[in-house]
Formats: sequence, structure tokens, C-alpha cells
Amino acid sequence: MSGGVWFPRLGLVAWLCFLSLGPAQGGKVLVLPVDGSHWLSMKILVKELNQRGHEVLVLVPDSSLLIHSSESFKTEVYPVSFSQADLDSEFDQLTDGLFAKSPQIHDILPNVERLVSFTTLQVEACESLLNNQPLMSRLRSGGFDLVLTDPFLPCGSVVSHLLSIPAVYFMNGLPCALDSKAILCPSPLSYVPVAFSGNTNIMTFPQRVKNVLMSFVESYMCKKIYGHFDDLVRKHVKEMTTYKELISHGAVWLLRSDFTTTWPKPIMPNVVFIGGINCAKKAPLPADLQEFVEGSGDHGFIVFTLGSMVSNMPEETAKQFFEAFRQLPQRVLWRYTGAPPKDLPKNVKLMKWLPQNDLLAHPKAKVFITHGGSHGIYESIYNAVPMLMFPLFGDQGDNVHHMVARGVAESLAIYDVTTEKLVTALNKIINIKSYKENMVKMSQVHLDRPVEPLDLAVFWTEFVMRHKGASHLRVAAHELNWIQYHCLDVIGFFIVILLTVVWLMLKCCSVCFHKCCKKEKAKMKKK
Amino acid sequence: MSGGVWFPRLGLVAWLCFLSLGPAQGGKVLVLPVDGSHWLSMKILVKELNQRGHEVLVLVPDSSLLIHSSESFKTEVYPVSFSQADLDSEFDQLTDGLFAKSPQIHDILPNVERLVSFTTLQVEACESLLNNQPLMSRLRSGGFDLVLTDPFLPCGSVVSHLLSIPAVYFMNGLPCALDSKAILCPSPLSYVPVAFSGNTNIMTFPQRVKNVLMSFVESYMCKKIYGHFDDLVRKHVKEMTTYKELISHGAVWLLRSDFTTTWPKPIMPNVVFIGGINCAKKAPLPADLQEFVEGSGDHGFIVFTLGSMVSNMPEETAKQFFEAFRQLPQRVLWRYTGAPPKDLPKNVKLMKWLPQNDLLAHPKAKVFITHGGSHGIYESIYNAVPMLMFPLFGDQGDNVHHMVARGVAESLAIYDVTTEKLVTALNKIINIKSYKENMVKMSQVHLDRPVEPLDLAVFWTEFVMRHKGASHLRVAAHELNWIQYHCLDVIGFFIVILLTVVWLMLKCCSVCFHKCCKKEKAKMKKK
Repeated sequence: MSGGVWFPRLGLVAWLCFLSLGPAQGGKVLVLPVDGSHWLSMKILVKELNQRGHEVLVLVPDSSLLIHSSESFKTEVYPVSFSQADLDSEFDQLTDGLFAKSPQIHDILPNVERLVSFTTLQVEACESLLNNQPLMSRLRSGGFDLVLTDPFLPCGSVVSHLLSIPAVYFMNGLPCALDSKAILCPSPLSYVPVAFSGNTNIMTFPQRVKNVLMSFVESYMCKKIYGHFDDLVRKHVKEMTTYKELISHGAVWLLRSDFTTTWPKPIMPNVVFIGGINCAKKAPLPADLQEFVEGSGDHGFIVFTLGSMVSNMPEETAKQFFEAFRQLPQRVLWRYTGAPPKDLPKNVKLMKWLPQNDLLAHPKAKVFITHGGSHGIYESIYNAVPMLMFPLFGDQGDNVHHMVARGVAESLAIYDVTTEKLVTALNKIINIKSYKENMVKMSQVHLDRPVEPLDLAVFWTEFVMRHKGASHLRVAAHELNWIQYHCLDVIGFFIVILLTVVWLMLKCCSVCFHKCCKKEKAKMKKK
Repeated sequence: MSGGVWFPRLGLVAWLCFLSLGPAQGGKVLVLPVDGSHWLSMKILVKELNQRGHEVLVLVPDSSLLIHSSESFKTEVYPVSFSQADLDSEFDQLTDGLFAKSPQIHDILPNVERLVSFTTLQVEACESLLNNQPLMSRLRSGGFDLVLTDPFLPCGSVVSHLLSIPAVYFMNGLPCALDSKAILCPSPLSYVPVAFSGNTNIMTFPQRVKNVLMSFVESYMCKKIYGHFDDLVRKHVKEMTTYKELISHGAVWLLRSDFTTTWPKPIMPNVVFIGGINCAKKAPLPADLQEFVEGSGDHGFIVFTLGSMVSNMPEETAKQFFEAFRQLPQRVLWRYTGAPPKDLPKNVKLMKWLPQNDLLAHPKAKVFITHGGSHGIYESIYNAVPMLMFPLFGDQGDNVHHMVARGVAESLAIYDVTTEKLVTALNKIINIKSYKENMVKMSQVHLDRPVEPLDLAVFWTEFVMRHKGASHLRVAAHELNWIQYHCLDVIGFFIVILLTVVWLMLKCCSVCFHKCCKKEKAKMKKK
């Protein structure tokens, strides 16, 4: 056979090898999403997987906020013990008081309790699923290759374990950095800021003191937040005792971030950054919006939303915004479901929903007024639009702090916003060039990547299906306990040896000394 | 303007933005390579950069082992103070005694001294370059965008600093893990084996004790190995005191490995894994080789080389190999420059050089006999050929240990190899299926990647040129000293506070106690 002939043959062998690996195309994916904004970006991956020939089944509780059936994937609705009204009211409690007063340090506990109350409801939904024997046995025999889930809620991980299917995690980060703790990622407190600490990666001595103190608070919060997750795990997964232990078995972690919104820090091999995955697909603007933004002239326009979950605000707060916008030459597109004022400024267009990414992609977009959710931030970075930010809850405070520190945003508190503050901040962002320049640089770095985030997410999801996990990326540290991990037993061993040596030396000295003394005494006696 | 029209315009804007970033195409790259096998894989990237429109200049000392001028890139030869004969003799000393006796623990120091003697010569070459004023001023005004270098030797990093050009590092790893130390990558000793420890990522208690002890040895070795590098840095880079500090400024580290040949461990954001970059390009076999390997029938053939630097061995050792091969049904291709024996076995073909990767790519390749250099290992993994390994020096011992632990290779010592040992080992690898099966699995994982290593290396090299560095990937820990990094000052502060509180409490108690006592005494007196 000539040299030129066996090359194609080798190609064929390699190809056959790959086929024998398992489902590169045509895998079966079971999806257990987290409701709310979390679902909006996961849906993009779910749709893409379906489009690339995988069979996707999304499990949806019958009371749900944003997860609905779709033509792009199959859904299976399962009954839960609470009503839609219960869910809505729990969610409303989460956002309660946001517009009323300044958040204080002692608000942390009530906030954690609200979060726990919300997730307790979701744990109930999970119990409903796990106790639904007909559904569970159908899932068990369903031949799924993968569970795709968001570990913000525990059900996906539990199901993945019970069905012995590898899990791919899709998320932005977990409260009290449980993701980082679960994958045993070293996060030195000297330059990795703890959530809610208000620190950046460069800290003064007092800031480092605060960071260390906040890490203790974080550990305490972890216990409060994940206590009922741990109970669920202990009940259904006999061989494990904590939720952290369960999720540490996730094959690959798709993290909706990158080093434009995260300070550089150590990472683990099974973490894949897919920040900006929600920005990929753009559509042309509807005719009326197109006309509105094009009509803004050189002044351009402002996009204003507070995320998928908050579309309203107290009348008095809204008034401050209306009055500020009235004073600006820019046009404003505002997602607002409250009652419009009688004298609505002519430059303001209120909408129940707006195509955020498509609007930000328009070259006339000047400022994005946002609550600082991770999706919106990436849309802003993707399209290089500086921001005015109003952090509301969760990780938004940290997101906003990071963007302000990078010089691409200004931040105001929503509870005491005034027309004057608004006008000053908006004029600053629009007229001082550095905001736009910094944002363009950040955008260029973010967009300059070897693989698009959606393709990367699909690749690693398929990788886990092909290889039935990603065990070569799992660190051996998971098999060690805390003492072993930190080599405290080795240090103890060295100390014991050192003490033994010192003791032996002292003993020798003492024996020698006694002998000498005896001889001296004997000599003295003789004399 | 309609919705469909401004999209192409936005595309144009984005495109113009990218053009304004700097040289995506047509950058100027200054290359300071490391001689020997290190150069062989770097050359692949250098050629590719040239082919993609970048202007590449490779600086070559006039005494050199493997770096020669090429049509694919420009070279500039600079005079050094030693002759080719000096260089050859220094290199021979490095491999001295390999075939004579078992390596012992007390051989570490002489081996380090040989390495230091070899690198001292290279530091001299660097001095020749740095003192070559005409050449240095030409480089200074050459408008280079990037220095591509291998930090195994210090010259590239020094030149990059003196010329204020960002550096991309291309390497496999540095002696005593200086790369890991320089980028401040956490490497917990409980599951990250220290070089030469003989440990894997899973360690028993005694192995962890050994690992910790070896880390002390490593620190000592670091001082010995890099002492004269530090001197060079202090002499030419006034504001820095160590070589480690200098290389910590590398923008991106292209590491010729991945998690098939490295145990999973934490990584840093500016490290890019390009393991297997040397396997990409394959050519058809020459007619005589093609005929030889095709004629091997179902038994297949064995490929045998000890790397680019060792092509010979003592007659007695060679005899053991010839006799072993005579007993095997496989054909053998052996890179051997010694005198062939009179009764050369018919199944053995000796060659001065052989196309290793092209041969391993042939489906009839059964075993690869190798010294365990990183290039050869990746060619073996790429083509899923199990190995018989003879580690000679440097990192080869650790490489071999890793491959044996993964069940894809057997290892023998070259100094006491016998015909019997050879035949047994080769038959084991060929006839026990697990070696091939494990290797196929490893190969599949290695080859299943979103971007080919060469493309990834080019991407990040161009990224650094476009953005004049990669500062967003540099951890802030570089600005901290050792005490700050480990928060020892914070811990000290807490201890002081704790002691103060305890002291104050004791003081209070003591005051109270005295007052009580006084009262008691007063009462007693009254009574």
C-alpha cells in the first residue's frame, strides 16, 4: 500500500474510534433547570443541543415562573405541592423592601432567611419529583446520557446520582461560593475577594482583615443556606452527608463568567468559562423600536431594565426617573409595567418587555441602566455600552462593584435615588470618554476568544456524553479529608519526630550531667 | 434605516475595532529559543506564525546543536564566547554515565551541578548577546510586538524586559517547578506530586511525608539551579532581584502538556495547554520504510528511539537489544548511530534518523520504545501506541512514572537491561490487551478538544500582540509579599487582639479579686 493510501484509512479508523465512544450526535439529555433568570441562558444551550441532534427532555414543576414548553425541546411537567400563587408570593418576598431603605449589615440574616424560605419551596418541589415513582422509573429506564442542571437548586444533582448519569453544571456561581468550595479550588483570601466584602482583588491591610472576617461570615451563611439541601441529600443519597459532597461529583462546570467580570484567580481543570453565552443570538429590532432609536440622533438612547424579575417600582421612585429622563436629550427605552404618569416625557418609551441585547447592539446605545444581573452585564460588555447600575439583591452588589472598579460603570442606590443624582450620573457616563473607552477595551478582550461560549458549552456537554464523564479532570483531593488535604498529619508527624529528638537529646544531656555530678561528688568525697 | 441594514454596519464597526487593536496579522515576533529538543516543537509554532503572515526573527548563537537557518523564518546569528566543541562536550557531560549504573539519591547534587554547568554556558551566550550593542540597538528599534521564548534559559525574558515587549512562554515545565512558583499557582502537596518523588496524585501517608520532604529538597535545588540566572537578572534588570520575579511577568504560558500527562491540579488563568502540538503535521512514509512496515504482517512493528539527543549506547547494552529483537516476531525500526553488529537480526532496520510520528501513526505500530521525553510521549498518545520506557534524565523519570501508573507503558532501567527483561516486557505490552485499551482511551480523551493545540498557540500568541499583553489574566497576588499572600499579618493582628482581650479580662478579674479580698479583710478586721 502506498504512503498516500493508508492515510485516509487511518482517518477512517480514527473516525470509527470516535463513533465507538458514544453519542457525539444523538445523545439523550435530561435537563433540570432553575426557574427565573437562570433558565433564560440555560435555555440557549438546551435549544442548541436539540438543534445539534440531541434528544432533550426538560423537567418542569407545574408551578413555574419562566419555564414553559417549547417547540425546541420536549418538556415533562410534574406536580408539586404548592400553587403558582405560593411561588409568586415567595418570590415577591425576596425582592421585598428593596426600594425602601439602605441595606445594612444586620440585613444579611433576614435576607438569608428569605432565600432559605424560597429554596425550601424548591426542595419541596424536588421531593415531589423524587417521590413520583412512575416518573422516576420512566427516567431510570429512559437511557439518558447526561443530566444538565444548575446546582443553585439540589434536585438535578440528586437525580443525576440516583440515575448514575454524569452531570454537567451550568451556572454563574453559588451563594457563599459553594461551587468553589466543592471543586476544592484554592482561593487565597489575600487577593480573592469574598462575596459582599466590597473588596476588589487589590486590598489594603484593613480590607484583607475584612475579607478574612467575611470568610467566617460566609462559612456560617453556608450552613444556614444549605442546611435543608444537606437534609435532602442525606435522605435520598445514603452514602453522602452534604450537598457540597454531592455536587463535587459534577463532571464539568460551565461557568457563565470569564476574567472580564471576575478577578483573575486559580481555576480548576473541570471548569469551563462560557461568559457571554447569552449574547450570541441577535435579531433585528421591530420596526417601531428601530424608528424610535434611529430618531434619537447624535444624542443616542438609554436602555433601562431591572432584569426579568423586577419590572415595577414605587411611584415615588419612578417619578425621580421620569423627571431625570425629561431633562436629558437622549431617548429612553424602559421596561416598566407600572402605571405611566400623565405627563410621560416625550423621549421615554415604556415597554412591558424589551429586546435588551438587540437594543444594546445598536450603535446609538449610550448607557444601559441595569440592576447588575450577570446576563445584562455581559450584554453590555458584548456591545461595549457603559452602565448605570442599581444593585438589588444576590450577587448583584458584587457584580456592580466589579464593574465600577473597572471604570465601565457608575452605581447608585435605588432606595434613595433622586432626579439630580440620576442626571449627574448619566451625564458623567455619557460625556466623560473614559467609561466608553474602558468598555470598548473590555469588550475587545471579552470577544477575542478561540471558541464562542455556546460552542464551548456544547463541546463540553458532548464531551461528557462521549466519555461518560470527565474523570481525568477531577482532582485527587476529593479523596482526602481536611487534615490530609492540608498535610496537618504530616506536620504533626514532623513535630513528634522533632520533639522526640529534642527529648532524647535532653535525656542524654541529663544522664551525662548526672554521671559527671556523681563523679565530682565521688572525687570530693575521696578528697 | 431598516433593521436588516445596520447589522452589516455593526459588523464593520466591530471589524474596524479589531483592526485598531493592533497586529492580528502581520505582527513582528522576536524568537529566543532553547537549543535541543525544546526547539523542535517551538519551531512548529514559529513556522506557523510565519505562514500566517507574521514577521519572525529567530536569534541563534553561532554555536548551536539543532537551531539552523530555515526558509520559513529569518534568523540572525550572534557570536558567543564558546565553540561548538565546548557545547558538545557540555552536553555529553549531561548524558554521562546514563548507561553505567543505577541512579541514586546522592546523584541528585552532581546532576544538578552538570545542569548548572550546561546552563552557565548558555548564560554566557546570553551575556554575549546583551553586550552586543549593535545587535541590541537594532532589536530595540526593530518594532517587535512580542518575544516568544522558552524560560528554561533566561535570555528571552531579559530581552523582553529590556525591550519592553510582552513575552509569550513556550515550554513543558521548568526544573524544580519554577514555572508554577512564578505564576503563584497553588499546588497542594497532598495531591500534587513533587518532581523526582516517585509519587502519583494519590498518596499514602508515607508518600505524603516523602512529598513534603522532597519539596524542601526542591527549594534547595531551586537556589542551586537558578543562582546564576538570578545574577544575570540583577546585572541587567535593575528593578528585579530574582529570575522567578522576572518570568512572573510572562503574558501567556503555552504549556506543552495537558491532563493526559499531568495529574489534575489547580491552574492559573494565563496558562494555556498545548500538549501534542508536535503531533499535528504528518507526512507519508518514504517508500523503503513503507515497504518495511507493511511487510511486518499481523505482528506489526516496534519503533525505537531515545530522543533527538541520544542516538548511541555502549556496545554491551546494544547487544541486549539486538538479541531481544532477534527473538521477536515483530519488525523493529531503531534510530541507532553506533556500529551495527555483524549478525544484525533480519527484522531490525537501523537508521540515523527516523520519522517517529509518521511511523507511530501507522496502524501496524505495536510498541514505542522511548526515553520518555515529552514530545515522544505525546506522539505515542496521539497515535495510541503503548510504550516501553527507559527514562534517562531530567523530567523523563516523572513522565515515565506517570505513564506506567496510567497503565499505558512499562518501564525498564537502561543501565541493567537484559535480553530476557526486554523480551518479557515487550511481549507483555504486545499481548496483554489492557495496555492498548488504556492507550486508546487516553488518546481519545487527548484528541477530543475544541481547538487544536497549534491553533490555540497561534491564537494566544496573536492575542498578546493584539492587546499588548494579557493583563486581565495576571493575578493580583504578584503585588503581595509572602506574609501578605498567606495573610500572616492578618492572623497576627487577630492574635494580638485576642491576647489583648484575654489580658484585659484577666486584669479585670484580678482587680475585682483584689477589691473583694480587701473588702473581706476589712470585714474580718471589723469583726
